[in-house]
Amino acid sequence: MTDTRFDVLCIGNAIFDVLASVEEDFLVAEGLTKGSMRLVDAEESLRLYGRIGAAVRIPGGCAGNTASGVGSLGGRAAFVGKVAADELGDAYGHDMRGAGIHFATPALKNGAPTARSIILITPDGERTMNTYLGACQELGPSDVDSATVEAAAITYLEGYLWDPPAAKEAFRRASDVAHAAGRRVAITLSDSFCVDRWRPEFLSLLRTGTVDTLFANEHELKALYETADLDTAMAAVREDAGLAIVTLGAAGSMAVTRDETHHVRAHPVDKVVDLTGAGDLFASGFLTGLARGLPLPDCARLGGIAAAECIGHVGPRPQAKLADLARQDGFEI
Amino acid sequence: MTDTRFDVLCIGNAIFDVLASVEEDFLVAEGLTKGSMRLVDAEESLRLYGRIGAAVRIPGGCAGNTASGVGSLGGRAAFVGKVAADELGDAYGHDMRGAGIHFATPALKNGAPTARSIILITPDGERTMNTYLGACQELGPSDVDSATVEAAAITYLEGYLWDPPAAKEAFRRASDVAHAAGRRVAITLSDSFCVDRWRPEFLSLLRTGTVDTLFANEHELKALYETADLDTAMAAVREDAGLAIVTLGAAGSMAVTRDETHHVRAHPVDKVVDLTGAGDLFASGFLTGLARGLPLPDCARLGGIAAAECIGHVGPRPQAKLADLARQDGFEI
Repeated sequence: MTDTRFDVLCIGNAIFDVLASVEEDFLVAEGLTKGSMRLVDAEESLRLYGRIGAAVRIPGGCAGNTASGVGSLGGRAAFVGKVAADELGDAYGHDMRGAGIHFATPALKNGAPTARSIILITPDGERTMNTYLGACQELGPSDVDSATVEAAAITYLEGYLWDPPAAKEAFRRASDVAHAAGRRVAITLSDSFCVDRWRPEFLSLLRTGTVDTLFANEHELKALYETADLDTAMAAVREDAGLAIVTLGAAGSMAVTRDETHHVRAHPVDKVVDLTGAGDLFASGFLTGLARGLPLPDCARLGGIAAAECIGHVGPRPQAKLADLARQDGFEI
Repeated sequence: MTDTRFDVLCIGNAIFDVLASVEEDFLVAEGLTKGSMRLVDAEESLRLYGRIGAAVRIPGGCAGNTASGVGSLGGRAAFVGKVAADELGDAYGHDMRGAGIHFATPALKNGAPTARSIILITPDGERTMNTYLGACQELGPSDVDSATVEAAAITYLEGYLWDPPAAKEAFRRASDVAHAAGRRVAITLSDSFCVDRWRPEFLSLLRTGTVDTLFANEHELKALYETADLDTAMAAVREDAGLAIVTLGAAGSMAVTRDETHHVRAHPVDKVVDLTGAGDLFASGFLTGLARGLPLPDCARLGGIAAAECIGHVGPRPQAKLADLARQDGFEI
């Protein structure tokens, strides 16, 4: 195994979040399931956009958020994702590169626009997502640069990549290249609805060793094994994954291998403002620690620090310099 | 004087704010004057954009912020400003209309892009603005719809409109139409650098009665009369303007006519987070009260409520429903 140029390469859907506040009635009138992510076409995205009030627009997407966390922690991050050659795409790329993240995926020309997710925030703080995948549909194997994959200690893929058809091939190709170079390949299950859509394929990815490291929250893990019992799901994932990291909200996280079980408590949070991105940022900390060879409990602590910062403000990307927060707890990245 | 369809018509530069954090060294290296607004061309705007990190993009512009405040207070607001037919321009219009503001200015096609101001935030919270006027340069008299001006109790203009040459004519035309319909015409001086650029013209606007109501903060008023003494400036403006409203930060505000002087204390603020937009939002409250015929001290109180909300969060537009806050203090708009 040669030296790494990147700690973590994140591959995912490059999505601009468009956040707007709505009343509960709005979800009812639109027939939407609160807290879910649904995929919509361009027409439906535009129609919904026309019905919401003033919006906040910020670069998002699970893997993109994770990359920004790795960078903020002082890790070396790369990102692969497909934007279009339009204003949203330019802004997405600007902010990635501005955060020190290597991002060289060619923008799509003369095709669909940059992906956007209209995120409806109800007064209870819940978020209901309506995602138009746009240019993300065109992410293909040719967008995965072998040299970048080989140069990354960990390649991290989001489960949502299973939605756009061409991305699956990109995903498999990245895994092959990474494993051939002796690297680690991780996946996040993204959300429990995503698990429902792709359960057999996700299980196959684990059981064939296409991915060796799994990130999931409690709901996603239970959905994967179709059980209401966490212990049952934990026992199953211990068999299927080389390493599984399961986040438990305020109860912290578990990191398990076939032989080891680590439970790490959650990092204290002053005030829960917005949970969006907490899982993505937890992954950023854990992955950064893992890439640097830290013991699993320390990886989980680093994840907890990043998640806690994210929970304390609106928006899925860090506002404070995570490296400074990590240093206060004795971590030097 | 016939019935009004709008309480306040705001005319100004339609600008997207692009906010990014920088270190003090950055301003030094760029040779920028901290706290100032400078006008830049497209090339310089792009160059600077390439040097900043991840950014926050939000619709801004003084008069646009004021219109959003009027709407949030439950007033009927209209806005005239020039965006381009591009993604930023679409987003600007979407958010204006989404906030219930009448906004019908045709977007510029095949010309300069939508205006943007790159706002550099230093660790001390100061903001240094670099504004590319883009499509705003093309706002002209034909964009001012007479029927809208006639239907508004108050037409409110921002001093920054003096920067793009064609806007001056739009400005004068709006004033003529408004006064012919027996309406009030107000102006804000925008900032003290703007006053330095256009002092003789601003004084002439007041002295010829082209505008009858003036909004200024202490620095702008002193700059207008080239004096370091506030009392001297207040005595002068009392002669020049039918009504002058001078904001004094934590010391509240003064509203003066030739015969009256009202000093109203500032609304309490829990925590000063970001002063951007405080003056614009103060104006929104004052103007809404004025349009509804409230006594001047009540107008100032309503302004204070709107400004206090704005100061409590990042960004120049209200996050809470200002009408609810005003109601807590006994105001029914």
